[in-house]
Amino acid sequence: MIRIGVIGYGYWGANIVRNFNSIEGGKVVSICDVDGNALRKAQRLFPGTEVTSDFREVVTSPDVDAVAVVTPVSTHFELAKTALMNGKHIFVEKPFTASVQQAEELVELAEKRNLLIMVDHTFLFTGAVKKIKQIIESEALGKLYYFDSVRVNLGLFQHDVNVVWDLAPHDLAIVDYIIDGNAQALVATGEAHVNGLEDVAYVTIYFSDKMIAHLNVNWLSPVKVRTTLIGGGKKMLVWNDLDADEKIRIYDKGVEVNNKEGIYDLLISYRSGDMWVPKVDQVEALKLESQYFVDCINNDTTPINDGRAGIRVVKMLEAADKSLKKKGEMVYL
Amino acid sequence: MIRIGVIGYGYWGANIVRNFNSIEGGKVVSICDVDGNALRKAQRLFPGTEVTSDFREVVTSPDVDAVAVVTPVSTHFELAKTALMNGKHIFVEKPFTASVQQAEELVELAEKRNLLIMVDHTFLFTGAVKKIKQIIESEALGKLYYFDSVRVNLGLFQHDVNVVWDLAPHDLAIVDYIIDGNAQALVATGEAHVNGLEDVAYVTIYFSDKMIAHLNVNWLSPVKVRTTLIGGGKKMLVWNDLDADEKIRIYDKGVEVNNKEGIYDLLISYRSGDMWVPKVDQVEALKLESQYFVDCINNDTTPINDGRAGIRVVKMLEAADKSLKKKGEMVYL
Amino acid sequence: MIRIGVIGYGYWGANIVRNFNSIEGGKVVSICDVDGNALRKAQRLFPGTEVTSDFREVVTSPDVDAVAVVTPVSTHFELAKTALMNGKHIFVEKPFTASVQQAEELVELAEKRNLLIMVDHTFLFTGAVKKIKQIIESEALGKLYYFDSVRVNLGLFQHDVNVVWDLAPHDLAIVDYIIDGNAQALVATGEAHVNGLEDVAYVTIYFSDKMIAHLNVNWLSPVKVRTTLIGGGKKMLVWNDLDADEKIRIYDKGVEVNNKEGIYDLLISYRSGDMWVPKVDQVEALKLESQYFVDCINNDTTPINDGRAGIRVVKMLEAADKSLKKKGEMVYL
Amino acid sequence: MIRIGVIGYGYWGANIVRNFNSIEGGKVVSICDVDGNALRKAQRLFPGTEVTSDFREVVTSPDVDAVAVVTPVSTHFELAKTALMNGKHIFVEKPFTASVQQAEELVELAEKRNLLIMVDHTFLFTGAVKKIKQIIESEALGKLYYFDSVRVNLGLFQHDVNVVWDLAPHDLAIVDYIIDGNAQALVATGEAHVNGLEDVAYVTIYFSDKMIAHLNVNWLSPVKVRTTLIGGGKKMLVWNDLDADEKIRIYDKGVEVNNKEGIYDLLISYRSGDMWVPKVDQVEALKLESQYFVDCINNDTTPINDGRAGIRVVKMLEAADKSLKKKGEMVYL
Repeated sequence: MIRIGVIGYGYWGANIVRNFNSIEGGKVVSICDVDGNALRKAQRLFPGTEVTSDFREVVTSPDVDAVAVVTPVSTHFELAKTALMNGKHIFVEKPFTASVQQAEELVELAEKRNLLIMVDHTFLFTGAVKKIKQIIESEALGKLYYFDSVRVNLGLFQHDVNVVWDLAPHDLAIVDYIIDGNAQALVATGEAHVNGLEDVAYVTIYFSDKMIAHLNVNWLSPVKVRTTLIGGGKKMLVWNDLDADEKIRIYDKGVEVNNKEGIYDLLISYRSGDMWVPKVDQVEALKLESQYFVDCINNDTTPINDGRAGIRVVKMLEAADKSLKKKGEMVYL
Repeated sequence: MIRIGVIGYGYWGANIVRNFNSIEGGKVVSICDVDGNALRKAQRLFPGTEVTSDFREVVTSPDVDAVAVVTPVSTHFELAKTALMNGKHIFVEKPFTASVQQAEELVELAEKRNLLIMVDHTFLFTGAVKKIKQIIESEALGKLYYFDSVRVNLGLFQHDVNVVWDLAPHDLAIVDYIIDGNAQALVATGEAHVNGLEDVAYVTIYFSDKMIAHLNVNWLSPVKVRTTLIGGGKKMLVWNDLDADEKIRIYDKGVEVNNKEGIYDLLISYRSGDMWVPKVDQVEALKLESQYFVDCINNDTTPINDGRAGIRVVKMLEAADKSLKKKGEMVYL
Repeated sequence: MIRIGVIGYGYWGANIVRNFNSIEGGKVVSICDVDGNALRKAQRLFPGTEVTSDFREVVTSPDVDAVAVVTPVSTHFELAKTALMNGKHIFVEKPFTASVQQAEELVELAEKRNLLIMVDHTFLFTGAVKKIKQIIESEALGKLYYFDSVRVNLGLFQHDVNVVWDLAPHDLAIVDYIIDGNAQALVATGEAHVNGLEDVAYVTIYFSDKMIAHLNVNWLSPVKVRTTLIGGGKKMLVWNDLDADEKIRIYDKGVEVNNKEGIYDLLISYRSGDMWVPKVDQVEALKLESQYFVDCINNDTTPINDGRAGIRVVKMLEAADKSLKKKGEMVYL
Repeated sequence: MIRIGVIGYGYWGANIVRNFNSIEGGKVVSICDVDGNALRKAQRLFPGTEVTSDFREVVTSPDVDAVAVVTPVSTHFELAKTALMNGKHIFVEKPFTASVQQAEELVELAEKRNLLIMVDHTFLFTGAVKKIKQIIESEALGKLYYFDSVRVNLGLFQHDVNVVWDLAPHDLAIVDYIIDGNAQALVATGEAHVNGLEDVAYVTIYFSDKMIAHLNVNWLSPVKVRTTLIGGGKKMLVWNDLDADEKIRIYDKGVEVNNKEGIYDLLISYRSGDMWVPKVDQVEALKLESQYFVDCINNDTTPINDGRAGIRVVKMLEAADKSLKKKGEMVYL
């Protein structure tokens, strides 16, 4: 039985507690928050669980095997580091840390002490992303051309991070997971209209072999959109995460080039066939991820969303900030 | 009666001829194409109109008052220049020319000879864009924050220009028309997967006063999308040009900031009210534009889509190419 | 403080308990179910509330002021009658009873004893139906022409009632509420394909003054649809209950008739203007209804969804069954 | 070469002429209309074709092999009969005739004289209906349960026929074509709000073996809908004719019944799998039908849309009128 201490009992922390309490081999034994109301709510719902406003009680407790850090990103490093130094495995909310340096230090520390780091890249555990990964691995799409995501809505403005740090970690974690080949360089543009932090931003990521990714993130959109296009040489895919029943559509569409002699003899033909909507698993992603965390600890497995995946995502976020400041200058990764 | 010679009788040229023949005060008197089949088709449909494969016959004819140039962009400059030098007003397909230098030379020439240039920015004459212009001018949206357009579909690949020159002129002409304040700088990213020309591209344009525009153009999308979001301080607008009945939606949504003391006391509140779909005029845009061309000649009026508008669009296209080559380097306009 | 006993702790009973516990002036003091698991679940969630498997304990308890009957329709009559005879106000799940005779007997009994009956026509308390009622009362739609509802999905098959008794009570309660003028006659057609009970059915209701309503209910549809069209002489309305953000659309569309001389000189013209999506209140309907139940008891008010509303709905259900058996014969109401 | 005379040169007549002129082995030699403007327009577009305002010239001309009757339904019988009596094959606009008696007389006459009748059930030649027919014949859907069509829009009001005669012939022809087993009885309800003719109507058709069809036709809908659900024991299909790219969706959804012992032990389980959008042929239906008319004449083949198909559709229309008058009384077919 892995005994888990959870630091941070806000909206997402409550989901974390509920899920870690619902899996096999895991159990939340301690909940920490600096907000008294949150603590009282936790106490009422989980009478048998210890609650505290002092995170040190959680990370030093001999009854705690692993610590989930579900707090604002600026606090991740200190909390996670202290937990690791006390010999606890850690589960850290995304984005992993506020800087690449912090992320690297945590990974190094965990490796030295043989502890596990899992970064909460929840989307990797959704039915949609698992299906997309499987489709790409089956090579049904052919060589990948582009990944184009739109993730926009009205609010919620953050006070400490811009829209890239708020919304893009989802897409960056997904891209990192499903695309073979590393990100090489990044260009970000955007603007801050309301509170001094960018609320509209566009990120282009160059991968090897002409693969390109683009993220459109926006806190000022009147409509909520969560749509990703993935284009390949053989087939193309549209993932609309807001469609309850038809999240993934696979189009048997494509372009074929017949190179005769020289560039002017290129004959381009278009192919358009059936469309197919595969059934997507509807299990709660966070439940699968919680179980996976406990299983990885028990089996000493490296998770797909380990600290190194966390580093790669934070590296792209850091590069995006740098590029944004220079209005689109390319930053190598 | 303005007598018009049309050079280029392909798909769009046929629309041009049909529309210039349907208006008051104008008439197509001569049609030119290098393709014999096109000419035969023109002759069959318009038995009374002269047809020729030699554009010089059109531009030198004393029976021609104005020349419409509806040919590939690489030929615009020579055809337009010859027409102007023969004292003809010109109507030129978009994009105006293949370079800013060519565009400026044509404008200078036309001004010297007191001739009119109209660039075929057809979208400015659609019911949708006219309604959007009117809404923005009424200040219903408040201060403009962003213009975010997605214009993607499968094909048609061009052999001579990339996807930016093919699809973005529409959005650039619209942005140039509806946004007060000049474009200041531009960043473009993209990739060429199929025939050596960029088929996926993203363009960010920085305007004064934190207004930002973004264009997503793509020849490799399995779905056709023509959607533009325009965000303002008071209201927000979504234009879906593929929706036959509800092209424009105006959302009474917004973000309000109450600055108390210092950045950390910013209180951001969200407002969400009714949504409204105004009726949009359904007259064929090209018909309105054709009439406007003739009217501008007769009344000696400068059109909204004059040669200078053409220059501004070509300047952005040229900058996009330059930025693309340097993988996103900002180019000042 | 109105003390409430709830009989039936299934899916909907749990919602009833949660809501009656969340309002002012009301409190659930007793929960009854014949299923031991349901009772144990109730006990765990509400440690201070009495639980029992014997409904007589609830209806005879001096600590209970009102009884909510949330059981299969075949049991409503006996439970409700016993409660009324013990001097309890009653809140009864829809459909009110299994027959008009039962419904009338309950209403008579309640009136004699001055007790309140509320039938759980939850939809009347949704933001959408309240807005529609308000729009119709404002006469914005003009004279009402038709009400056309589609309520279809896959399953859930009931074992004791057909698709009309399962799905149509929603629409019948809504129609009864928003249409002025009584239903006069009804025609129902349908077919039973799976378990001997009609799983596909169509109900037409004739009202006075040429108003007509039509319900399409179906347990065998591959797609879930919850759409109602309401046509009037001035404007028309579409209510899509599955659209999270744009439930109600009001179209400024209509037909105008200019009667010249005789039928053959009718000039019919069509009007098509703006479309408007009013903001709809998003409070949980059942919470409003729970509060309303307690308020009606305290203020001795007759609710809009009283026993007589229940009778009217059951009368239409009974007529539908009769018409179905005779394959569409008209049944007067 | 089949030489065709076309009587009636309105909106649809113009399509008929264009298509009969575009096929192999057919040619329009004569066009008749009582409206001078229509005739002048025809003459301008088809200088070599004879035009006349006297239909007798068409039906008696020795240069005419077949006559297309594209006039209001009230005139079909006389025109078609005269044509047949003059030895001409006929192509008649739907609905075939104004009564079953007329339809039967025409069929008898044609058989006696060995002439071909084709009724313009255009929809049978659309890519969508051909694909649906093929899917049903492949038994992919399993036993058919229901056919449920919604065909509503604003206008166009007819002056001589109600909304059933105007819109339902499409669905009746389709149902007649794709459903094995004859229609047995029919129930129609509806109301006339504007010009004395029913503008809202609902038609239920009972087939053998529990198959049921339902049509919802309406001239007073603010939105245009053209959607048909077809439910079967194995799979289900949704046809949205307004969706340009995804007209047909096939859902791997269904209900399975395991009959244990007696009705109360029925175990109903639900199956929900992938969804599939087959590619649908986009050739113009009327062009295929025109070619088919000429081919049927040349090969002496009985068309799928022969006079007997016309009779079956008119029989249902006549029954609908009868049922409408009696407010839903079942009429046997």
